[in-house]
Amino acid sequence: MTDKIALTPKTHSTPPARFSHGVRKGNILQVAGQVGFLPAEEGKPPTPAGPTLREQTLQTLANVQAVLQEGGASWEDAMMIRVYLTDVDHFAEMNQIYNTYFEEQGLTRPPAARTTVYVGLPAGLLVEIDALAVLD
Amino acid sequence: MTDKIALTPKTHSTPPARFSHGVRKGNILQVAGQVGFLPAEEGKPPTPAGPTLREQTLQTLANVQAVLQEGGASWEDAMMIRVYLTDVDHFAEMNQIYNTYFEEQGLTRPPAARTTVYVGLPAGLLVEIDALAVLD
Amino acid sequence: MTDKIALTPKTHSTPPARFSHGVRKGNILQVAGQVGFLPAEEGKPPTPAGPTLREQTLQTLANVQAVLQEGGASWEDAMMIRVYLTDVDHFAEMNQIYNTYFEEQGLTRPPAARTTVYVGLPAGLLVEIDALAVLD
Repeated sequence: MTDKIALTPKTHSTPPARFSHGVRKGNILQVAGQVGFLPAEEGKPPTPAGPTLREQTLQTLANVQAVLQEGGASWEDAMMIRVYLTDVDHFAEMNQIYNTYFEEQGLTRPPAARTTVYVGLPAGLLVEIDALAVLD
Repeated sequence: MTDKIALTPKTHSTPPARFSHGVRKGNILQVAGQVGFLPAEEGKPPTPAGPTLREQTLQTLANVQAVLQEGGASWEDAMMIRVYLTDVDHFAEMNQIYNTYFEEQGLTRPPAARTTVYVGLPAGLLVEIDALAVLD
Repeated sequence: MTDKIALTPKTHSTPPARFSHGVRKGNILQVAGQVGFLPAEEGKPPTPAGPTLREQTLQTLANVQAVLQEGGASWEDAMMIRVYLTDVDHFAEMNQIYNTYFEEQGLTRPPAARTTVYVGLPAGLLVEIDALAVLD
């Protein structure tokens, strides 16, 4: 039997429902949809990193990365990244932020595949990202 | 060679197009997007369980579960659950229904990861859910 | 270690950001969200196959297939196909196109699972499709 493990970074608040921020089973790791919440502080409700697309995208990527790392993975292992934006006009700016972020990661393997679509999100949130990783 | 098997619960009507309600190949099981249709009755078009979010969410979860079970899996094996709602205002109520449902399932393993986004769905449908599972 | 390989069909233009059109690692292959762009021509910006749902859907499916083939896979290996449409009224027509396309493929294995939702896409694009495949 392969264990199924919940991945709960210390920076993350309790999910608002009965789901895990990430799960790993064998070499498959799935990160739940992350948004731009700052590291959790006790007694404080989840708070976005800021109102701008840049602030939220960078914090969201950091939150996805934290879950990957909690499961012993990294961006190198990411196969698919799903980006949900609320506004088609944010595509070019998100791509710039995304590119700079991943250049700075200095990955040696090819980047993950990606799908970007435009959906509704709770008020104040401009971006949500989830990821599927396959570990070595 | 690992077989790829279509999963077609007896409760399910024929898909409206050339896709499977679920497929399993090796230990990977993918459930197609399910909606709140009642168990199929011959000669009757697919009918939602009711107009409310509660009725549709519970029926949708039952439909996902039927596909998992058809493939020899259960919620214990679910890695990712994607929830598509049509209205941001349904988030809190969906979470309540979701939590109660999964408490009643009495799972011993951590819950699946989840992403919830708000999209358009065919008229009358308030929720769609799909799932990825990894079997032992 | 299992290699993670980027899949870049010759027909495809450079992605607009730091992601791969597809990646394969071991027997898992993920195709990024494809749209109905015609085969890339040097010095020409990405151009949709046409304004109609039919033209774009068929070109999108061809683009997904090209990535699958680049990774040594085919539609036979597809486990999940995600279809993003911009208009609920396109569902019936997309299904007809989808069915005819897959009939013509003459697959011997069950078709992939599928989820269809309605989202926003960049201006002029009516459909986006991604796919997850598990190879033998």
